[in-house]
Amino acid sequence: MKDETMLPNQIDAWQMTKPGELMRTQVPMPEIRPGDAVVKISGCGVCHTDLSYFYMGVPTIHEPPLSLGHEISGVVVGGDPGLIGREVIVPAVMPCGECEVCSSGRGNRCLSQQMPGYSMGIYGGFSSHIVVPARFLCVVEHRGPIPLEHLSVVADAVTTPYQAALRARLQPGDRAIVIGAAGGVGSFMTQVAKGMGCAAVVGIDINDEKLQVMRDYGADFTINPRGLAHSDVKGLLKTYCKDHGLVANHGWKIFEVTGTKAGQELALALLGFTGSLIVVGYGTDQTTYMLSRLMALDAEIIGTWGCPPERYGEVLEMCLDGRIALAPFVETRPMSEIAHVFEQAHHGELKKRVILTPDF
Amino acid sequence: MKDETMLPNQIDAWQMTKPGELMRTQVPMPEIRPGDAVVKISGCGVCHTDLSYFYMGVPTIHEPPLSLGHEISGVVVGGDPGLIGREVIVPAVMPCGECEVCSSGRGNRCLSQQMPGYSMGIYGGFSSHIVVPARFLCVVEHRGPIPLEHLSVVADAVTTPYQAALRARLQPGDRAIVIGAAGGVGSFMTQVAKGMGCAAVVGIDINDEKLQVMRDYGADFTINPRGLAHSDVKGLLKTYCKDHGLVANHGWKIFEVTGTKAGQELALALLGFTGSLIVVGYGTDQTTYMLSRLMALDAEIIGTWGCPPERYGEVLEMCLDGRIALAPFVETRPMSEIAHVFEQAHHGELKKRVILTPDF
Repeated sequence: MKDETMLPNQIDAWQMTKPGELMRTQVPMPEIRPGDAVVKISGCGVCHTDLSYFYMGVPTIHEPPLSLGHEISGVVVGGDPGLIGREVIVPAVMPCGECEVCSSGRGNRCLSQQMPGYSMGIYGGFSSHIVVPARFLCVVEHRGPIPLEHLSVVADAVTTPYQAALRARLQPGDRAIVIGAAGGVGSFMTQVAKGMGCAAVVGIDINDEKLQVMRDYGADFTINPRGLAHSDVKGLLKTYCKDHGLVANHGWKIFEVTGTKAGQELALALLGFTGSLIVVGYGTDQTTYMLSRLMALDAEIIGTWGCPPERYGEVLEMCLDGRIALAPFVETRPMSEIAHVFEQAHHGELKKRVILTPDF
Repeated sequence: MKDETMLPNQIDAWQMTKPGELMRTQVPMPEIRPGDAVVKISGCGVCHTDLSYFYMGVPTIHEPPLSLGHEISGVVVGGDPGLIGREVIVPAVMPCGECEVCSSGRGNRCLSQQMPGYSMGIYGGFSSHIVVPARFLCVVEHRGPIPLEHLSVVADAVTTPYQAALRARLQPGDRAIVIGAAGGVGSFMTQVAKGMGCAAVVGIDINDEKLQVMRDYGADFTINPRGLAHSDVKGLLKTYCKDHGLVANHGWKIFEVTGTKAGQELALALLGFTGSLIVVGYGTDQTTYMLSRLMALDAEIIGTWGCPPERYGEVLEMCLDGRIALAPFVETRPMSEIAHVFEQAHHGELKKRVILTPDF
């Protein structure tokens, strides 16, 4: 049996040798510079973004071969002595901390930012170890019975919705709509909105079964828009508001998580007076809209990218105090099943977000 | 000679009897309720909005006949005793102050708001007097040599840009682009941006002559985009930035004031990382855009409507301390020329914003 605290010379890794191809291999442990931390990976979540690199031709900054994976939790086993032995979450995007964008408080969109499995050389989360800047790590304490590997998804699937809520200036008492409420990110968006004190969270999704689950996790009301006209969806929302003493015609904050044309068009149709539409999901379709409607509505459309590492602690706290449940929405699989899991994810056959745990 | 402080029983008015038709008439002074103020009108600006009711079939809330005009300054001659004799600006839109929208700090988009020449019965600014709620009036003090009638345009043409800047969270040191920089509202948008401390204001307009004038009133750099591709405009901006040590690729706040498809498309093309596009101008065209670009850019599109009356004081101060010049951008004409002025405005023959002064 290996001494798990001893630093290996090699990192075990599943590499994307080229898009569509995975290979188990070993790569050299990189030079560990001052300020670095070596993280022994406990789990790495499989994100839609990984699939877009693997199947859909979206290019990674570091050209293949490289290991994908950017939702990482683990234990520090090398580098920064102050962190050795600490459990950590590795932020999905790590700003440079030096540039003008960072100085302006928008580090989440730093143009020199690094992302494991994308722009940090050949290194990513579908591996045994990763070397990252220590200063951005989110230290995990008092996690109780929550498995460390479950916390890997905080790094993108939970912090991205949290940052979306911050961008929307979400306040207790607000009213929110989540389009794609039952999906991998949407289910956390729904919980984040409720966890931040929304008076009403309406979950919209085309998966009835998953939508039903969301009733127990933040959604006060749910709508399946399949086969419905925009006016029908509006009608359902209006009736719900009437029945529950809620304002229907202004102030709703709409989080569009699907990135689909249908989802975005519904979001635009639902956008009302003083409302906000927060674009959380990514898709390449175009939509057509009368931009001056935003003026007449005093409304806004807000794009949101990543989450600054300094916010991770707040999100972790919500996961640890129960405002955000992870367990019902994730499942762990041995990392050796990566190829099969990618296939299943690509074909929409997964019911939960999969976290791969190293079994090299 | 009439005693100007005596309250008349009749109000002299230019009425839009129906779209396209103006008639000089007299209407009864309405009942003056507690909290009302009777304003003897010094001047009323002619706004594009008036033309849209008169020529373009945009309906007014109160059906014709009514007097148009919502950019009003004048002297209080009746009603609230505390205000008698005071010079005031009448806000273009006056919130109810009671509803949920008002309570949420978004009174500028109050759904029960009142606007002279639109929703206050038959009463509007192209008249001798108007009765309005006293509590929303912006009292003018120490105006020095600035004619009171010039301050009428504060009520829409200057406060709307100011609110747009607030919506954009414009800060000293910011970089702004104004599309339609030389127009009736855009010229004030340009001055507001510079007056609020922008490090750089780029004025974009298709009128070279007017654009040249803006060099003296807030525009650090100007671009005439006529005949240029979006990439050409970007190139000019990039060169300007390079020559002046400015960041080109992130953080620009773009104010689109034209409401035209061409202006909006240019604005969308210029929108960069962490940027904001503020939709100030109104038009009914649709634009096509990849909404997820906002996500990738961490950028936003903000619609802005009117300006809450409580902000008028700040705008007035900028006009009085010289940060915003009115005189070069306005001209006064006797109100009896209203029909001719409307025609000229409709055909784009006016070089300055016209303020009509009552000459009944």
